[in-house]
Amino acid sequence: MSKIEIFDSTLRDGAQGESISFSVQDKLDIIRLLDDIKIDYIEAGNPASNPKDAELFEKIKHLKLKHSKLVAFGPTRRKNSSADKDTALNILGDAPVDTVSVFGKCWDLHVSEILHTTNDENINMIADSIAYLKAKGKQVFFDAEHFFDGFKSNKEYALKVLSAAVDSGADRLVLCDTNGGTFYDEISDITAQVILNFPNTKIAIHCHNDCGMAVASSVAAVYCGADQVQGTFIGIGERCGNTSLASVIANLQIKRDYQCIPQDKLSLITPTARHIAEIANTSIKRSEPYIGSAAFTHKAGMHADGVVKNTATFEHIEPSAVGNKRKLPVSEISGKTAIHHKISRFMPQIGKDEELIAKVTDELKRLENQGYQFEAAQASFQMLCRRLLSDYTPSFKLISYNVSDVLPYTEGSSACATIKVEAGGETKSAQCLGEGPVNALDKALRESLKGFFPQLKSVHLIDYKVRVMDSKNATGAVVRVLITSTDGTDIWTTVGASCDIIEASWIALCDSIEYKLNFLNQPKG
Amino acid sequence: MSKIEIFDSTLRDGAQGESISFSVQDKLDIIRLLDDIKIDYIEAGNPASNPKDAELFEKIKHLKLKHSKLVAFGPTRRKNSSADKDTALNILGDAPVDTVSVFGKCWDLHVSEILHTTNDENINMIADSIAYLKAKGKQVFFDAEHFFDGFKSNKEYALKVLSAAVDSGADRLVLCDTNGGTFYDEISDITAQVILNFPNTKIAIHCHNDCGMAVASSVAAVYCGADQVQGTFIGIGERCGNTSLASVIANLQIKRDYQCIPQDKLSLITPTARHIAEIANTSIKRSEPYIGSAAFTHKAGMHADGVVKNTATFEHIEPSAVGNKRKLPVSEISGKTAIHHKISRFMPQIGKDEELIAKVTDELKRLENQGYQFEAAQASFQMLCRRLLSDYTPSFKLISYNVSDVLPYTEGSSACATIKVEAGGETKSAQCLGEGPVNALDKALRESLKGFFPQLKSVHLIDYKVRVMDSKNATGAVVRVLITSTDGTDIWTTVGASCDIIEASWIALCDSIEYKLNFLNQPKG
Repeated sequence: MSKIEIFDSTLRDGAQGESISFSVQDKLDIIRLLDDIKIDYIEAGNPASNPKDAELFEKIKHLKLKHSKLVAFGPTRRKNSSADKDTALNILGDAPVDTVSVFGKCWDLHVSEILHTTNDENINMIADSIAYLKAKGKQVFFDAEHFFDGFKSNKEYALKVLSAAVDSGADRLVLCDTNGGTFYDEISDITAQVILNFPNTKIAIHCHNDCGMAVASSVAAVYCGADQVQGTFIGIGERCGNTSLASVIANLQIKRDYQCIPQDKLSLITPTARHIAEIANTSIKRSEPYIGSAAFTHKAGMHADGVVKNTATFEHIEPSAVGNKRKLPVSEISGKTAIHHKISRFMPQIGKDEELIAKVTDELKRLENQGYQFEAAQASFQMLCRRLLSDYTPSFKLISYNVSDVLPYTEGSSACATIKVEAGGETKSAQCLGEGPVNALDKALRESLKGFFPQLKSVHLIDYKVRVMDSKNATGAVVRVLITSTDGTDIWTTVGASCDIIEASWIALCDSIEYKLNFLNQPKG
Repeated sequence: MSKIEIFDSTLRDGAQGESISFSVQDKLDIIRLLDDIKIDYIEAGNPASNPKDAELFEKIKHLKLKHSKLVAFGPTRRKNSSADKDTALNILGDAPVDTVSVFGKCWDLHVSEILHTTNDENINMIADSIAYLKAKGKQVFFDAEHFFDGFKSNKEYALKVLSAAVDSGADRLVLCDTNGGTFYDEISDITAQVILNFPNTKIAIHCHNDCGMAVASSVAAVYCGADQVQGTFIGIGERCGNTSLASVIANLQIKRDYQCIPQDKLSLITPTARHIAEIANTSIKRSEPYIGSAAFTHKAGMHADGVVKNTATFEHIEPSAVGNKRKLPVSEISGKTAIHHKISRFMPQIGKDEELIAKVTDELKRLENQGYQFEAAQASFQMLCRRLLSDYTPSFKLISYNVSDVLPYTEGSSACATIKVEAGGETKSAQCLGEGPVNALDKALRESLKGFFPQLKSVHLIDYKVRVMDSKNATGAVVRVLITSTDGTDIWTTVGASCDIIEASWIALCDSIEYKLNFLNQPKG
């Protein structure tokens, strides 16, 4: 197994993704996650570019990591100046990290059109800067910006730039496809030529996904002998994003004979990716390879049947190998197999042909037609099944609620909810102010129930999502609400749908509480 | 330029994507879109599998297409039966289309574990079915399910299956990587071997994206001589999705010397993709190559500066080539260049260093910090700039609103809004019932303003989106609302953010109306 170094740029290139913005604490949290899964290099940012990154590098001084090496990123010296008097380069040289990545131009177009300097001065800028950083005792990665475009435009010059970097002591040559326009086969050809020219220097590949080939291109470069793959763990980055390291690691290590991270860390791939996405306040595409919530979801009846017989029939790897899960979603098109499979997990005594399964299938169709979806709301699905059993009685009943929302605020609050519920023959009402109408209703419901069910005290909401279905109907459209709750031990998600967002939220809130009372109240069996 | 056939399976494989569900009308609409862009083959569905598809094939009879050929998809005859007595196969043979795609097993594992039959009977099933369909006068594509896994498991048998298909008259061999686990280099090697074995039969490649390489693999197969690429236009499909045809077409035709669709249709790629996504009620990933809303978004200050100087410095193709647009998003990290660029589009007289730009930058930072984002809400951004000019006075003022939402419903409605506004020194109030609180408020606002501004009559909302920011704060989190409006001519989007979803909607509603009154009222100049 050859070792491939993994270099993550979530905090630098990833932060350039549209709508991504990290606080200093976010960055520290992501560093911790990447260190846990033993990523070799973590690019933390450019200490000279903005106060946030400057603060991060201050904090980094005190950081103790188990495995990862932090990297500071920055430009070469400016044109027609000297390395030891260049402020940004000096800051880079003084950054509290052992490794720095310094970027320079390899494409003659950029030298003339962006830098407005000569090809020779560009080479001097790179050579001087690397020599300066080496003299400061750093491990230096030369980030060869636009290398592939440069090679195609002026091969001789692009290689001359790399020679200057190597002669000045660069420890890695990072071949960047900055614009993401290079196909995997060109990446392969050109990387092979670089390796022939610089057999004693380690080579890194840095792709962008503008042609939808970043993962294949990175694998192609590794096949040719590249030693390091750069990317971002979940693929975020400028324009179409960087290479997804989650995919590259899984591909190379599970399906080929390379080692990227320790073997026992592979199952952290999915949880790490999801945690990073959460910090980045972005969502991983459902269908994202390996880590997406639907990456191992078998919706077609025939596929679901096949997987139940033998998982290899419709899965290229075991989902647990990357910490992901198989799903046989229940939906109107899923067969009885999937529905039975799902019900039997929490009602193990149910046989495949029982009446309940037919009833559940009908109810699913009816509710999906109204805008519900149970794929992500397992707790509501369980409640749906529970309610269809003859021995079910609801834990409480709503008599009425009235939520009012005003502007300007009254009593410092925009919303007020009044609720009346009945449980065990008794009626109870409550009134609460809230930050918004749903928050007020949530508080009032808990307030009204707390006397009946003390065990609800530990329950609180940890996630609230809203999706407007058929959004062309604008404010009159059906709204689907997903609520995730926890009691400190379990985590469950419920769903509600209605044209009225407050009613949709209400339905999901009730399911959340009913689920706790019905499924989490007894000792587990 | 060699012609590559394009085969779209959005309606069949795409419909197997998690949470995708098409009505018959949706399918007809998508067929029309794919025909407009001149996709060669459109797989419409399996006429024997469900009533919806049966209805679709009824309607297809009357459909007149300009270019595309519709394809019916179905299984071979069952084991130990005869082709002319097999109901599903008979329906396929009688489908009102010239081309059918019949799928059969190429992987011995599936023959034994899923079909529970012998390798010989499996071959008979395929041969009989193709012969039957050919005798019905159909063009027959043999969909070689799990071909690559089959080839790797038992090369001799997999090739024998293809031989039987060719001998029975198959017009295309469709090499499927059903589980999506095959790398581009294996796809390439194995496709080349198939082409060597069957030099007189056209070959199609059908990949899934489970390794994140479907696009590269499809391109690799074309390099080897495959004649047809199968996929779904926006990449939806079971698990990680099918090959994105949008990416394949753009890659092969803009960046290589192949023709997939007529040259003058290339600029329909993005609008077609977005229209399909809308019908599928799914969203295209922002960073999706070529068609994503951020595919040509340059957020980093240095990239934005470069693109303004020369687009080739940071773009691999001209965005308009695929009907997409360059964006220099305004955000706290974007430089003055991007903000000036944006403002100058609607206030052409503004210079780069004017005070307004500094004020806008500060206001953007403040509002983004509160949960606003203007990247997708150009109209709110324009109003933000407009409000910062000294000559601005609001068109109307809110005195108060009160929205109440109840369960059980009163007067058949869950929500009622009362509003009081002032315009031109006059006060006006209105009360409206609605389907949900935001709908009621929207109606009441329009009702109260209609006397003042008759030009608002033509304005209505066409899209309403809600995103819960920092959703960990659950129902108390900040909610961002995006509203898209039209007056029949223009379309504009506005944003609002608040902990209170009604207040957030209110802000976006006001911006929508103010935008119409401020920017669309005068003759354009």
